[in-house]
Amino acid sequence: MPHSTERARKYSRDHAERFRHELHELLRIPSLSADPAHDGDVKRAAAWLAEHLHAIGIESARVMPTAGHPVVYGEWMGAGPDRPTVLVYGHYDVVPAAMEDGWDAPPFEPVEKDGKIYARGATDDKGQLFIHVKALESCLESGGAPVNVKFLLEGEEEISSPNLAPFIKANLDLLKADVCVISDSSMPRIDRPAITHSLRGMTYIQIEVQGPTDDLHSGFWGGATHNPALALVEILGQLYKPDQTIAVPGFYDDVAHLTPEDREMIAKSELTEEQFKSVTGVPATWGDKRYTLRERVSARPTLDINGMWSGYSGPGPKTIIPAKAGAKLSARLVGNQDPDTIYDLLRKHIESIAPPTVKVQVNLLTKGKPALIPFDLPEMRAASRAYENGWGHTPVFTRGGGSIPIVADIYDVMKIPVVMMGYGLDSDGLHAPNEHYSIEMFHRGIETAIVYLDELASIARGTPAVEHAHTS
Amino acid sequence: MPHSTERARKYSRDHAERFRHELHELLRIPSLSADPAHDGDVKRAAAWLAEHLHAIGIESARVMPTAGHPVVYGEWMGAGPDRPTVLVYGHYDVVPAAMEDGWDAPPFEPVEKDGKIYARGATDDKGQLFIHVKALESCLESGGAPVNVKFLLEGEEEISSPNLAPFIKANLDLLKADVCVISDSSMPRIDRPAITHSLRGMTYIQIEVQGPTDDLHSGFWGGATHNPALALVEILGQLYKPDQTIAVPGFYDDVAHLTPEDREMIAKSELTEEQFKSVTGVPATWGDKRYTLRERVSARPTLDINGMWSGYSGPGPKTIIPAKAGAKLSARLVGNQDPDTIYDLLRKHIESIAPPTVKVQVNLLTKGKPALIPFDLPEMRAASRAYENGWGHTPVFTRGGGSIPIVADIYDVMKIPVVMMGYGLDSDGLHAPNEHYSIEMFHRGIETAIVYLDELASIARGTPAVEHAHTS
Repeated sequence: MPHSTERARKYSRDHAERFRHELHELLRIPSLSADPAHDGDVKRAAAWLAEHLHAIGIESARVMPTAGHPVVYGEWMGAGPDRPTVLVYGHYDVVPAAMEDGWDAPPFEPVEKDGKIYARGATDDKGQLFIHVKALESCLESGGAPVNVKFLLEGEEEISSPNLAPFIKANLDLLKADVCVISDSSMPRIDRPAITHSLRGMTYIQIEVQGPTDDLHSGFWGGATHNPALALVEILGQLYKPDQTIAVPGFYDDVAHLTPEDREMIAKSELTEEQFKSVTGVPATWGDKRYTLRERVSARPTLDINGMWSGYSGPGPKTIIPAKAGAKLSARLVGNQDPDTIYDLLRKHIESIAPPTVKVQVNLLTKGKPALIPFDLPEMRAASRAYENGWGHTPVFTRGGGSIPIVADIYDVMKIPVVMMGYGLDSDGLHAPNEHYSIEMFHRGIETAIVYLDELASIARGTPAVEHAHTS
Repeated sequence: MPHSTERARKYSRDHAERFRHELHELLRIPSLSADPAHDGDVKRAAAWLAEHLHAIGIESARVMPTAGHPVVYGEWMGAGPDRPTVLVYGHYDVVPAAMEDGWDAPPFEPVEKDGKIYARGATDDKGQLFIHVKALESCLESGGAPVNVKFLLEGEEEISSPNLAPFIKANLDLLKADVCVISDSSMPRIDRPAITHSLRGMTYIQIEVQGPTDDLHSGFWGGATHNPALALVEILGQLYKPDQTIAVPGFYDDVAHLTPEDREMIAKSELTEEQFKSVTGVPATWGDKRYTLRERVSARPTLDINGMWSGYSGPGPKTIIPAKAGAKLSARLVGNQDPDTIYDLLRKHIESIAPPTVKVQVNLLTKGKPALIPFDLPEMRAASRAYENGWGHTPVFTRGGGSIPIVADIYDVMKIPVVMMGYGLDSDGLHAPNEHYSIEMFHRGIETAIVYLDELASIARGTPAVEHAHTS
């Protein structure tokens, strides 16, 4: 490890307390992106970050407008044009928090207790994005960073990033980089770091069934009216096979095949039947028996009913034949599945089985592409080494079952690898009362981020860091 | 027709206007049984009726307490112990009504317009019960009635008569009669009177499915969790067969067979595919093809989903696996089916098909026996003749698809025929804004009720009116 990297790590340790107090300042700004009443706070958080980046030596740091909340952008290109550039993505907006939700202390007045910083946004994502700011500062105060660094910090992640993909497309030259690093995820335990290299995509639809014009008296019309709730039940039932797989023709056609190496890597994140039952409370697990539980929830596509409604759901009896029934369904998609194709397949199948006794309508509510980034890319291996040397433990490569559409957007639009180096814990309580962030993980994260910059520089010296960008 | 009956009919015509004004007085009392704020009004309506019965010569008229709203009872036994006794059932309570629901005039300030009386309760059931009061008054003012008459007027019909069966059981001697007549139903057109001789019963259940303890993130857990909404869909789907009949074993075992005579009588109340579609708005009819539409909605049992719920039903997407799903289902039952037996069959079948991946619970919400009264009883034929002579049109005997539990209660407990002589129109708007009652039908009803008393007396002179009481 170069001397400058060691110096930067020492600098980060020497200034640990100041770093945390600066983070407290950022955490004090209630930058709730979903609540228009906090628009001013969101702006204030963006301005604070731009000023802070400026103060550590990023003269280009600025707030850039979007159709919604602004983006904070800043770049340090001092490593020179022959060195790789890393794009750090993070988000400075947070989800709502209020004392009445069960917080032990005001959510925007950070307190340190038992080795943790308690505040809304502590782990998601202010604490994690600040790691990269402090890593760069430590490098700059220790003779400079070994690679160029660009920051792309958005204020709308918690409201599904409606303006980020357009912003990226409009600023491709500005954002040009060789790799993107995102710290906005978590690991099960501090000694079990994880690099997420796959996320599921989504096709989310709504089905609406209309039978009679209005609710009917079930006594007067029951027996000769196709109950819309029953028609919906019949349609939904035909979307699944008895073996607990999805019956929609073509649904699995594009699913990326799991190689023995893939399955071996997935098996490192064990998920037993007992663990599954204990965490979720289900009496038994379910699904495609040809795959392990971990494979089912991360590397295989799903089709879940997210909501279903018809008629009367209040207390006691009401004797109607409902006029309508509806359901929301979302398919989680994996590598190579296209959300639009899946929507077409779902819609056509549902329309083909819709009975003539009711009217059936299918609509697309939202969609997102899956992201499957090979875990053997040099930038991925560099991240693994960074954890080993900076964190102290070898990470596993995992597949996330959820969806972060921006990852697929960056990967598809910018054609660069996206490395998800989460520095949070699964138990940090993100989006919940008493969200917190481990002080030790904050500091270990800074050192790991410093080492990662060095590892990226070292692969650049050996193999070109960009040639893998188009593999997928 | 005896001279006294002719005199009574003339009396009713001569006092038509006064009769209507008296009805207005009763309609002015907002006797809403469901709203405790109107308990005083319900009491006031009961007192008004008891006083009115007293005033027309029924000295025994009185308000009798129940655990809920009171019963008004009164008897005129002047025909003598060798003459039959008719028990008139009616209800003086009404459902809520408010201007903001769309009334053109205040619902408890009756107005006469275009030959109709507009007010809440005009047809359901104050106007129809008052027909029998005025029929008896007309007889008493014309030399006496040819049969004994007892009134049983309750104040809780609109809240499912929770205290009427106990009241009947506690007062069997007092209420002893040979036939019960109820006017609380309607005909399609004034020239198409109908006598309802059958009503469907009911078994109403709720199914609740629990999967995980709480809603789960569909990304983290989807693919290995049996979605409770899907589990419910699978259960509900197995309650029906592809031929649109009910798949619950034993469900049809006790269903009363339809004889050629039954089917001929049912066919008199035509219900075409076009009529059905036009009234309900459904694209096509549905159900057991071995039976006509009219048979399906009145003489055959059903199983309808009245409500269904799970997860998120608001706008836009929400990516959860719901913790719970539920449905309300009601079976309409026909002659000889027992609601408790049907509940057992439903519950056992559902429990037998419930998958081990979720917890399933079935509860009974309410039940009611079906009533099937032979339409060839002398009391039924007497009613038919009363319509011919009093109303001016021969009635059809029809089966109602709905449920009036009190009919089965009276039939089963008192062991006397119940004759449902409806004097309303299907279009009267009962339970809706601008409920109204045809003035012509009110007066024709009084004359028909007078004639019916005479017809009952005449069958008593020929065949005993009571020997059919136990047939069913």
